[in-house]
Amino acid sequence: MIRVLVYNEFRHEKDPSCRASSIYPDGIHSAIAAFLNKEEDISVTTVTLENIETGITREILRNTDVIVWWGHMAHGDVPEHIAAMVQEEVLNGMGAIFLHSGHKSKPFMRLMGTSCSLIWRESDDLERLWVSAPGHPIAQGLPAYFELPGEETYGEPFGIPAPDETVFVGWFTGGEAFRSGCTWVRGNGKVFYFQPGHETYPTYKDANVQKVIVNAVRWAAPTYRIDNCMDCPNPPKAHTTGF
Amino acid sequence: MIRVLVYNEFRHEKDPSCRASSIYPDGIHSAIAAFLNKEEDISVTTVTLENIETGITREILRNTDVIVWWGHMAHGDVPEHIAAMVQEEVLNGMGAIFLHSGHKSKPFMRLMGTSCSLIWRESDDLERLWVSAPGHPIAQGLPAYFELPGEETYGEPFGIPAPDETVFVGWFTGGEAFRSGCTWVRGNGKVFYFQPGHETYPTYKDANVQKVIVNAVRWAAPTYRIDNCMDCPNPPKAHTTGF
Amino acid sequence: MIRVLVYNEFRHEKDPSCRASSIYPDGIHSAIAAFLNKEEDISVTTVTLENIETGITREILRNTDVIVWWGHMAHGDVPEHIAAMVQEEVLNGMGAIFLHSGHKSKPFMRLMGTSCSLIWRESDDLERLWVSAPGHPIAQGLPAYFELPGEETYGEPFGIPAPDETVFVGWFTGGEAFRSGCTWVRGNGKVFYFQPGHETYPTYKDANVQKVIVNAVRWAAPTYRIDNCMDCPNPPKAHTTGF
Amino acid sequence: MIRVLVYNEFRHEKDPSCRASSIYPDGIHSAIAAFLNKEEDISVTTVTLENIETGITREILRNTDVIVWWGHMAHGDVPEHIAAMVQEEVLNGMGAIFLHSGHKSKPFMRLMGTSCSLIWRESDDLERLWVSAPGHPIAQGLPAYFELPGEETYGEPFGIPAPDETVFVGWFTGGEAFRSGCTWVRGNGKVFYFQPGHETYPTYKDANVQKVIVNAVRWAAPTYRIDNCMDCPNPPKAHTTGF
Repeated sequence: MIRVLVYNEFRHEKDPSCRASSIYPDGIHSAIAAFLNKEEDISVTTVTLENIETGITREILRNTDVIVWWGHMAHGDVPEHIAAMVQEEVLNGMGAIFLHSGHKSKPFMRLMGTSCSLIWRESDDLERLWVSAPGHPIAQGLPAYFELPGEETYGEPFGIPAPDETVFVGWFTGGEAFRSGCTWVRGNGKVFYFQPGHETYPTYKDANVQKVIVNAVRWAAPTYRIDNCMDCPNPPKAHTTGF
Repeated sequence: MIRVLVYNEFRHEKDPSCRASSIYPDGIHSAIAAFLNKEEDISVTTVTLENIETGITREILRNTDVIVWWGHMAHGDVPEHIAAMVQEEVLNGMGAIFLHSGHKSKPFMRLMGTSCSLIWRESDDLERLWVSAPGHPIAQGLPAYFELPGEETYGEPFGIPAPDETVFVGWFTGGEAFRSGCTWVRGNGKVFYFQPGHETYPTYKDANVQKVIVNAVRWAAPTYRIDNCMDCPNPPKAHTTGF
Repeated sequence: MIRVLVYNEFRHEKDPSCRASSIYPDGIHSAIAAFLNKEEDISVTTVTLENIETGITREILRNTDVIVWWGHMAHGDVPEHIAAMVQEEVLNGMGAIFLHSGHKSKPFMRLMGTSCSLIWRESDDLERLWVSAPGHPIAQGLPAYFELPGEETYGEPFGIPAPDETVFVGWFTGGEAFRSGCTWVRGNGKVFYFQPGHETYPTYKDANVQKVIVNAVRWAAPTYRIDNCMDCPNPPKAHTTGF
Repeated sequence: MIRVLVYNEFRHEKDPSCRASSIYPDGIHSAIAAFLNKEEDISVTTVTLENIETGITREILRNTDVIVWWGHMAHGDVPEHIAAMVQEEVLNGMGAIFLHSGHKSKPFMRLMGTSCSLIWRESDDLERLWVSAPGHPIAQGLPAYFELPGEETYGEPFGIPAPDETVFVGWFTGGEAFRSGCTWVRGNGKVFYFQPGHETYPTYKDANVQKVIVNAVRWAAPTYRIDNCMDCPNPPKAHTTGF
């Protein structure tokens, strides 16, 4: 059983003036949890910014195989010590999936070490997502490309370290292109960034998007974990039979 | 002085039924040589398939800093021993720039080790090239993006090893996106692949394209060369003061 | 069930004047097959140079999840079309593990695109292998380091593309150090190179070495396969609801 | 002229009970500045922890091509805002060289995003440094290996993202091996980590070490800089002739 923790700041959805409130009345985290929980090998817990101090503890992270992160307007409200803890547990082996505006979240920026900047525009562009690594586990079962009738436009330059693999490249009617799905190993953990998911579109109700996230959860789940990667041990000189 | 060798198979341009014959009557190699030779620090020699055996020798490659390669319909006619020699000299430190359909050329495929496949279509799409690494030497002096009014469409998946850096991402009106400018270090040499340049469009007369190629030549030129990277030496155990 | 094909040129072991003949009287392939077959999820077939034309066919490779390759003095006798076929099937998703002197085998060199050169010496050095990626699936269950009382010495520079991950770093009493375990993704397949295994030492009888190879087989086995990565499709412009 | 800023915390050297006080009476920064200043194309400024607030400002960093960083016992005293500023200017294009115990400095850890942990021991081991990328600009003019009669021992696992290139691999008499010289591109800047340089050995007086650092300064110096990589611009939809 892959234990997934879905974090969502849960702000836009509570604002009646925002389309998100009608698309995701129970929050983006609930929508993501709903389709993940349909998988027999996945079990989901959710946490929002409101209860982040009790919902993201060291104990909880050590019992999480993969964290899924959605944040946007409230990145700054995530406590630094929690961002550091998430980073450390990824380095110890926990998988992490950062969605959409999570590119500027504290844990993602800490893990990447770069600006994570991009260009953006809200103009109801259609996005077409091309699979650029057809044999990658995250792309399993997908067609050569799929489309989202409306998405926020993201564009290059995307300020990331060179990805280990670029799984999706996005194309927007407005003229932008973007490395929309990228993977990295960081320490002993696997990280996946996936660009679609603006709060004003029903992106997480799209069957292909759901398939990507399910695949990514399975891909990111660790084979095993270590628990002390931040330490610098000072071992004695080893005895050997050789010298 | 950076010594550049431009290889062009020079077939399309000699076919009167092909638009290339009027766009590049003296061959793509001549067009490339012309704008490179305007740079004070670059000197160019050209070679075509017809004289490849005398124009690409070990001696010549050892006196070449950067090779620029354009080929398409006649990839199969490039002798295997010449492809191997080009590969070896890149591994020894020579820079290499592969243009457009050169993605399926023998030296590029040898250096990459992968399929180098892609999807393609000839439908007079406009291409917009986004700079995805604005601080990269190859992008120096370019705007955030530039356009080519007509190009052959290339699309993902592009069967390459993960690039060290993705310098350009291409967007096509027909709906495709592509990693259009990618770099790799292979052995002691630098390799750049640049997607624009179909023979039926005047791409190599475009000022931005010319700037990219000039920049790439300077970037790919080696600081210094080695000459024996294919060897596996068998040195004696080294003497040291330490043990 | 992971279907493994173990290739061994099987030359040294038939030479009575070589220590290999007494260490591996039935061949290195048989020794490797023996410990792999103890695993419930792995089933092994073997092939030697003598029967390579019938033992490595397209049909067989398409029914192989992971190929394990040991070769040395007879690299040159491996038919080019078979090396190309192995390369292609890795690009389609088959895993590949190259052992020891397999660094200069045709399929490995094709997949890497580089010299794959190194320095070497036969002087009965002890080797200590350090785990440099403790959370990597290939390192699961291993101590911080393990030792082999005798091995052929390999040293840097190792002419490989930058590894995706360096899982082991080797240390030799004679003064050399080496990136002894490296991974790459190539196309849709996973590749692992593992340095120990000279024919004149009982390396493949070592419990830690066996654990590495078992782990590597599980790591390299594909989630799924594609079958046509060498093609360059020419699809029509896609219809969409977007424009 | 390459403008170098050498940072040194300058603590060990002021402690009369530490060997560093007699080896580097004027501080490690002065020793590094001395050999760098001998190069006609390099000019050096130094800064220590004591005056870090006036010696590392945005203005100064914007006029620095390459920063060289030595820190150890006082990593924690480097103000967070200065570490962030150094990180940002590297992302904008400034080169950065981190020496020895700088692997746990705030700017390096921020740029890497990983633990940067390693194992270590002080036991007067001899270190032999092998060049693992003989054609790399940082290795220019060096022999196949060179030795330091005494160094602090560093060992794997080294908790770094996969290096773009591994230029040196270190071998220690005590039995450890280490990726001693590694490069990364981060944003628009180049980063080099170089392991030798413990304060109790005269490492920075060694001619080969000096050559490495001089070479690295030239390699890391940017071709050009950008100044706003942390921004996420929101440009209007671009007009084009294409659609």
